[in-house]
Amino acid sequence: MRAVDVIIKKRDGGTLDPAEIRFFVESVTSGSLPEYQASALLMAILLRGMTREETATLTDAMVRSGIRVDLSDIPGVKVDKHSTGGVGDKTSLVLAPIAAACGVTVPMMSGRGLGHTGGTLDKLESIPGFQVRLSLAEMKAALRATGCAMIGQTAEIAPADRKLYSLRDVTGTVESIPLISASIMSKKIAEGIDALILDVKTGRGAFMKTEEDSRRLAESLVAIGQASGVKTEAMITRMDSPLGRTVGNALEVIESIDVLKGQGPADLEEISLALAARMLVLSGVASTDSDAFEGVRHAITSGQALDRFRKIIETQGGDPKVVDDYGRLPAAPGRSTMTASRSGYLARIDAELVGRASVVLGAGRDRVEDDVDPAVGIVLKALPGDAIRAGDPVLELHYRTIDRRDAALALAERALVIDDAPPPKRPLIVSHIS
Amino acid sequence: MRAVDVIIKKRDGGTLDPAEIRFFVESVTSGSLPEYQASALLMAILLRGMTREETATLTDAMVRSGIRVDLSDIPGVKVDKHSTGGVGDKTSLVLAPIAAACGVTVPMMSGRGLGHTGGTLDKLESIPGFQVRLSLAEMKAALRATGCAMIGQTAEIAPADRKLYSLRDVTGTVESIPLISASIMSKKIAEGIDALILDVKTGRGAFMKTEEDSRRLAESLVAIGQASGVKTEAMITRMDSPLGRTVGNALEVIESIDVLKGQGPADLEEISLALAARMLVLSGVASTDSDAFEGVRHAITSGQALDRFRKIIETQGGDPKVVDDYGRLPAAPGRSTMTASRSGYLARIDAELVGRASVVLGAGRDRVEDDVDPAVGIVLKALPGDAIRAGDPVLELHYRTIDRRDAALALAERALVIDDAPPPKRPLIVSHIS
Repeated sequence: MRAVDVIIKKRDGGTLDPAEIRFFVESVTSGSLPEYQASALLMAILLRGMTREETATLTDAMVRSGIRVDLSDIPGVKVDKHSTGGVGDKTSLVLAPIAAACGVTVPMMSGRGLGHTGGTLDKLESIPGFQVRLSLAEMKAALRATGCAMIGQTAEIAPADRKLYSLRDVTGTVESIPLISASIMSKKIAEGIDALILDVKTGRGAFMKTEEDSRRLAESLVAIGQASGVKTEAMITRMDSPLGRTVGNALEVIESIDVLKGQGPADLEEISLALAARMLVLSGVASTDSDAFEGVRHAITSGQALDRFRKIIETQGGDPKVVDDYGRLPAAPGRSTMTASRSGYLARIDAELVGRASVVLGAGRDRVEDDVDPAVGIVLKALPGDAIRAGDPVLELHYRTIDRRDAALALAERALVIDDAPPPKRPLIVSHIS
Repeated sequence: MRAVDVIIKKRDGGTLDPAEIRFFVESVTSGSLPEYQASALLMAILLRGMTREETATLTDAMVRSGIRVDLSDIPGVKVDKHSTGGVGDKTSLVLAPIAAACGVTVPMMSGRGLGHTGGTLDKLESIPGFQVRLSLAEMKAALRATGCAMIGQTAEIAPADRKLYSLRDVTGTVESIPLISASIMSKKIAEGIDALILDVKTGRGAFMKTEEDSRRLAESLVAIGQASGVKTEAMITRMDSPLGRTVGNALEVIESIDVLKGQGPADLEEISLALAARMLVLSGVASTDSDAFEGVRHAITSGQALDRFRKIIETQGGDPKVVDDYGRLPAAPGRSTMTASRSGYLARIDAELVGRASVVLGAGRDRVEDDVDPAVGIVLKALPGDAIRAGDPVLELHYRTIDRRDAALALAERALVIDDAPPPKRPLIVSHIS
């Protein structure tokens, strides 16, 4: 098989055979395919698309590029959750302890923040001592001990995805639904889970800006999951404004713990609980949504979810006392409050701009190899829909250096829109695809 | 400027700024642009297209990647001819001496054969001693001495094109009219010519299979030439069957000399003379087509064109006696005649298959670095439209080894179609674009 013939076939709108797709993935993984051929094929795939069958084959080939974890010796139905990425999106930290407390086994493999969106691993690592790099044996021990393991992907999981993603990132071939789908699902399928709930974000701060694109992505992801024997569902949820009131790693840990204490912001609680409830249903722990929500609420009110989070932290080497003493988490040396320039209603807090401001502060990264600062971030002092008066605090920057603060401030100012009338209310959860 | 932003702009159907196109060409030439980014952009260009302005800028940037030859110290109007490539297409060898004999200055830079199509340089090099690698000074000396120089492109001419072409060849990005146009025209403009006649082939043996694609390419090429101050015209000519009766380097030299002696096949003579006549008009040597054709015919009947070819050969180090003694040219040791399997009319001789058969014999090459055998090739003993009887010779293979002969024979057999009725006559010259 000649790579150039495969490229030409896709370039001309053809459907690739399974053998051609496997050849592509295997030769990318082994390094025998020159990167200039891989990138030409990626661009042809982006512009010509892939059928659902091609996408499923691509995903399967990417799974087979590494190991598929065998969790059959761990009791319980294994359920993970994956988000397509948002700003202030800390639902994983909330729902994992809840679901585990309710009896779901949660082997959660997460990523790091990149660009304006944050990542679960960075947030967890702001807890002193917390280890996200567990071996497979350590991961299984954690699952047995707490029903939950929150770790990073190991190098053995879908190595083809890492190679392809680093190439897509520099060749303008990220924004392809088949390529995104295969990237996400190959890693999830390789985890060895039984079921998966996807949180597909839509809106200004999301990767997919329109509901139509979000739905297409969600449907593609669900179809791949089902085809590979993983029970998969998706929720499409709005990501126009940041989720909750905080953006930044330690700040988001605090807010997540607040939700587990029943004291979190309404939007974050709504989405976290809805996702957790579906995990209970997918795992069979609950048979109806109503039962599931009851179980989830009980886990909070009884303190079991919070207690489970303490155990998860402790099992993974972290300091469980942070749950009760936020002072043990890193805090930024400087704080600056931004106030409203006029009276009216806070119409919008642009999630992407707030996310970018948080990256400028050091909470996120533009390049994979950059470090993040666990302490810095942004706290929203007002939320969309709030009536505010000129001079009211709307936003607080937690910063380390003045120059970063000023650069973040300039971005944050652009993120806020104050209007005379309150903005229309829109449901947070747009739809549910299964 | 970030390469990935330029890629994304074109991927999304945008028009690239001149600065972006120049950045692309300059960084490809210097080697600072990774090949995986160059190939992704090439695929995006192929699938999204380029405006005429973008294509003109691309061409200009490619010209500027090397030297632009200054021929202002050579008297006369400098006119070259370029063909998009065919099988048995030896018109350059015929028209260059004719045009030079008529007073046109012909600085002809040609290429080598690749795939099923032949190249002028390979044909010239079958003449013992003929040197196609001349320095600029030697080229000018040849132009002064004979009014003609027939050479290969030097490394200083459009180096960006060589880099881009070698990448396009392996990434499925050859078949793009803007990229083909910029590749052809950058080299021609850099030659320092005043005018150019293009022979854009169309049909089974041509790069462009349909008249519509051929016309689009011709119009694109002419527009670029005009925009850069080179008087440019194109003829679209049929390339369904091989041109003339011979395919193979020394065999084609003999047939070209036959045309200069007034003894060549009608189709080859028709196209060669039509192109030569336009060169006379473009150069101002003739003011009308009628005058031009008269001049061209006189050059043949007077023997001046044949004499000029002797001088060109001698000036470039070759043996001019080949013109009068074909025995001085290399000849293949073996000959095999293929006969008609049935009676009827020869409906078709597929140019591409004959071209591929000639490559199998060794007359052409599939890879740039391969050598060619000057002696081997194919002689057509019957032409499309001829009435033939079963057992009549239709094709003669000039071969060096039996295994190559047999492989070529299998291809050649597929190239011939014998029918009960004569094929419809179609004009050789389809149209003229200026």
